[in-house]
Amino acid sequence: MADLALRQGIDELNAAYADCIDDDRLEEWPDFFVENCRYLITSRESHMAGLRHGIIYAASRGMLADRVMAMRRANIFEPHRYRHIVGPARIDRVEDGVAEARTNFLAVRIMHDGDSQLFATGRYLDRIAVGAEPYRFVERLVILDSQKVDTLLVIPL
Amino acid sequence: MADLALRQGIDELNAAYADCIDDDRLEEWPDFFVENCRYLITSRESHMAGLRHGIIYAASRGMLADRVMAMRRANIFEPHRYRHIVGPARIDRVEDGVAEARTNFLAVRIMHDGDSQLFATGRYLDRIAVGAEPYRFVERLVILDSQKVDTLLVIPL
Amino acid sequence: MADLALRQGIDELNAAYADCIDDDRLEEWPDFFVENCRYLITSRESHMAGLRHGIIYAASRGMLADRVMAMRRANIFEPHRYRHIVGPARIDRVEDGVAEARTNFLAVRIMHDGDSQLFATGRYLDRIAVGAEPYRFVERLVILDSQKVDTLLVIPL
Repeated sequence: MADLALRQGIDELNAAYADCIDDDRLEEWPDFFVENCRYLITSRESHMAGLRHGIIYAASRGMLADRVMAMRRANIFEPHRYRHIVGPARIDRVEDGVAEARTNFLAVRIMHDGDSQLFATGRYLDRIAVGAEPYRFVERLVILDSQKVDTLLVIPL
Repeated sequence: MADLALRQGIDELNAAYADCIDDDRLEEWPDFFVENCRYLITSRESHMAGLRHGIIYAASRGMLADRVMAMRRANIFEPHRYRHIVGPARIDRVEDGVAEARTNFLAVRIMHDGDSQLFATGRYLDRIAVGAEPYRFVERLVILDSQKVDTLLVIPL
Repeated sequence: MADLALRQGIDELNAAYADCIDDDRLEEWPDFFVENCRYLITSRESHMAGLRHGIIYAASRGMLADRVMAMRRANIFEPHRYRHIVGPARIDRVEDGVAEARTNFLAVRIMHDGDSQLFATGRYLDRIAVGAEPYRFVERLVILDSQKVDTLLVIPL
């Protein structure tokens, strides 16, 4: 039973997270993470090689907020949005109030003129604080299937 | 607990709805709506501008049925199908037996010769009657990410 | 309640199955099936015509294992991977410990150089042994939306 609620809570977290980004409410994005979090976008190859840094990296909620602010100020990139489609989460284990989960995702990028294309696929490897609500990410590793994405990456995934 | 059943019921409704369309059982499609429903396909821009009409619009179950009949009779378009992939639903609130939910979707269009392409992405903004089973849509707004879709749109999304 | 656990169990099975293939742990793939299983990849047209064989066919867990071994040995195809995105499962009925379910899926193919494209869409028509854990497939029919996929198909879907 706890299990049912847990899994549903994680699916909801994933839905809300995608919604926040796709809806361009990026100022709310850091709030999906605990204060001492780790957020990393990297490629499958780099992840398997054990590299701890990636295309986008943040080691605290403050760094996530900084990134959003910089993005808003710079504003030099061609306007675009994402649409995330995430699959059901898979929970690997729960220990000391932290759940380890992984979830497949796909992001479509929609340019300002309406052109849409498959932008990125991969999976989230997550550690999620589930001891209290709302659930928050202790760690979210975004493992991209392709290394071709990086130069185009501005908005978080 | 009620919450768990509710969220699962909405995920099931979304799965059944997609299944009905993708399976070309469009005559059953109006039955996913209450009698006095509202169904609207529109673009993100139009929706944000507060426009109440869109690419496809129906204000009752009867109008939905009419649309399907017209589509079957006309039959002038190049045969094609969709495959919907929907993410987990996000429930915003439940009041007076009506749940407000939103769900990301992606539709691939498969032409008669087998050519497949990403056709549309967006989200469903739903008001769902959940006081009795089966759940039915009081309102389903299909908010498309791109305005480029419209001329190609024949089958409902 | 049993219903909630059942549906969640099936979503989890689908997530684990996709994960196994996308993660290239194909040696574990046959373990998702019961000993006397049926696995079939076919096109919508062939399925509707009632043809019982398809692009890939196996009538036992041993045949699935053979297929993986052959694939590993031959190794003549251009290296690639999939990323599966599956929607919520739809359960049609449960009888004698076997659930009938169907689930939409989409698979993106990622080539070795990072090129990614929409590879296949379709739905799983499943019969799942749910009397004991872990749930296992008695039958998994992979019904492809397009007949154009087959010559490229090496890795199971």
